[in-house]
Amino acid sequence: MDREPNSSFATTDNAGGHEDEFKVTPWEVEGEIDYNRLIEKFGTQSITTEIMEKVKSMTGEIHPMLKLGYFFSHRDFDWILDKQKSGENFYLYTGRGPSGMVHMGHLMPWMFTKYLQDKFNSKLLFQLTDDEKFLYSHDRSRKEIEHYTRENILDIIAVGFNPDKTRIIIDTRHIQHLYPIATEIAKKITFSTAKAVFGFSNSTNIGMIGFPPIQAAPCFLPSIIEGRQVPVLIPAAIDQDPYWRMTRDVADRLGYYKPAQIHSKFLPGLGMLGKMSSSKPETAIFTSDEPETIEKKSLTAFTGGQATISLQKQLGGNPLGCPVFWYLRYFFDTEKQSDERMVLCKSGNLMCGECKGDLAKGAKSFIVEFKKRRQKAENVVEKFMFDAKEM
Amino acid sequence: MDREPNSSFATTDNAGGHEDEFKVTPWEVEGEIDYNRLIEKFGTQSITTEIMEKVKSMTGEIHPMLKLGYFFSHRDFDWILDKQKSGENFYLYTGRGPSGMVHMGHLMPWMFTKYLQDKFNSKLLFQLTDDEKFLYSHDRSRKEIEHYTRENILDIIAVGFNPDKTRIIIDTRHIQHLYPIATEIAKKITFSTAKAVFGFSNSTNIGMIGFPPIQAAPCFLPSIIEGRQVPVLIPAAIDQDPYWRMTRDVADRLGYYKPAQIHSKFLPGLGMLGKMSSSKPETAIFTSDEPETIEKKSLTAFTGGQATISLQKQLGGNPLGCPVFWYLRYFFDTEKQSDERMVLCKSGNLMCGECKGDLAKGAKSFIVEFKKRRQKAENVVEKFMFDAKEM
Repeated sequence: MDREPNSSFATTDNAGGHEDEFKVTPWEVEGEIDYNRLIEKFGTQSITTEIMEKVKSMTGEIHPMLKLGYFFSHRDFDWILDKQKSGENFYLYTGRGPSGMVHMGHLMPWMFTKYLQDKFNSKLLFQLTDDEKFLYSHDRSRKEIEHYTRENILDIIAVGFNPDKTRIIIDTRHIQHLYPIATEIAKKITFSTAKAVFGFSNSTNIGMIGFPPIQAAPCFLPSIIEGRQVPVLIPAAIDQDPYWRMTRDVADRLGYYKPAQIHSKFLPGLGMLGKMSSSKPETAIFTSDEPETIEKKSLTAFTGGQATISLQKQLGGNPLGCPVFWYLRYFFDTEKQSDERMVLCKSGNLMCGECKGDLAKGAKSFIVEFKKRRQKAENVVEKFMFDAKEM
Repeated sequence: MDREPNSSFATTDNAGGHEDEFKVTPWEVEGEIDYNRLIEKFGTQSITTEIMEKVKSMTGEIHPMLKLGYFFSHRDFDWILDKQKSGENFYLYTGRGPSGMVHMGHLMPWMFTKYLQDKFNSKLLFQLTDDEKFLYSHDRSRKEIEHYTRENILDIIAVGFNPDKTRIIIDTRHIQHLYPIATEIAKKITFSTAKAVFGFSNSTNIGMIGFPPIQAAPCFLPSIIEGRQVPVLIPAAIDQDPYWRMTRDVADRLGYYKPAQIHSKFLPGLGMLGKMSSSKPETAIFTSDEPETIEKKSLTAFTGGQATISLQKQLGGNPLGCPVFWYLRYFFDTEKQSDERMVLCKSGNLMCGECKGDLAKGAKSFIVEFKKRRQKAENVVEKFMFDAKEM
């Protein structure tokens, strides 16, 4: 009856006999992702040096996640920077599907979002799609989703968003505010279109088919709140792109700006390539993990090193294919440290044990600290709720 | 893009080469309805003498709308009467799509619903599907729907429902209460099923596809309110049956009683056979019509009479094919008066002018009175709202 959507979006176009070896949809990310090919297939833009310079001219710096290509693609990012310059301040909008606990992979785009909020003094809407996570899987009960929703909110707050300028939207709790906009959007999208964009099939349940406008609604909510057309920038992993493509298609006709996006890559898992996944807990470091667990996960991680120490000394490792390297680079190394680590690894002068030790140490102290902030967050949950009061 | 659903439900099954000459879906009613065939096609039950006797044993009488066959079909009506007898009191649930002003055809099932409420001391949920009416048509603005929603609520209240036991649900206003149940229902219904039941196509907008669970939700709301399985009886015109069939299919799996229904015919229009339609205003008497308008509509109504007075005297009329006769029978004649009218008409001893005059007189005074109650209703609208307080 309620089979999950048979998503075949974007990466199964076999023109020329070429079949992609990866799959990226809002519900599935599989295989080794070719990000340049994703840009091409999704019709987004690369983040150019020119755009980075524009950011630098406004903020005085280029954030490492931008510089190192973790955020690698966009739509209208340059346009929204110009809007900001001319006095039309943008809102930020991002979200989370509360289907499990939060791991470090989730934190990265949120940390970048916080950085953007701080630099541009932006208001932020943070949506939790508890409805979608309930609708998607027959195994998950509403109670389970409610549990993860509560837990995830603590993580979101612990990231450090500005409490005066951040509002959390929980779909089932705040549906009142989303539904009228969602029906406006839904009216403009036929089943054919939704099928093509999201890969829905005859066996998809009608809740999933009706859902996309609910995720689109916060793109237009700022305009309704402010009573004028408000530019909205969405920092999120690229698997969410189908939603924004759909939203951009209807924005004009509804009298709103098209939402701009800045797309991140996925954080590699510790056990393999691909997206760090809550459904494979051994490949991810969760904000709820105990130090011993983090230690174990770090020390047993997959690396880009050789099979033996002598081979490693002889041939050197492959840092760019090493999840431990990327973890360290994105979270714990400075740019200089990371560059040195790469040189040492390639030349056979750095053993995997050392990097894994660095990861264990960094991650343990990071999570210990994060857990404290997570605990403090419990006292301010209601302050962050969308219905609390004006931003 | 947002074409309306291509509803081909139930009456286009051409097994045996027979094509029905009528069409009944939640969005379209066309042609001369064969109600017996509808019972067969929809898989409902006829209201038998036995059921009427059961009603009589509980209420002391058989309401004319039941006796005269205006309510002609049901599902589990007998079951719900037994539940009531055994102390499990049922809720009533009915609704209205606010796409225009209310006419006398709309009032009939509502008047019967009020009668049931009075006789069985039932709580009633009355839903206004403002979302559906907005989603269905590209011509209708949200503002227009809001206008009709406000106007229709006055009509509903003017019918005289018990203010202590009646709550009005406006979908966009009370979505908070409907949405969690709706997602439970939606998760159990595939696009294939919805397509078969409602006639959705690839060009149907995804709002319409996602809508049916919103109309189904109030069937289960009483159980949530009362914290136990509550039997629900839906008095409504038979074109709404697809919703209840879908709802009954999922009720078991969600742990609720299947909602019972009692189905009415459509009130014939004054200008032709078929459903009295808001989109053909000359064929309907609206609660907002002025006396002169009512007079004019009555006197120019289509009848079952002959072309000339002398032919009428010679051949007699056809009261059962005469909308004026049915109007008088359902609204203004006693049973005895109506039977006498039929005999006189058939024998050529009653001229159409007299019946049309009776209709004009009856309808004018009915609407004058109704308008007074409608005006009084303005003071108690909030008392009837679902979110006002407990029933």
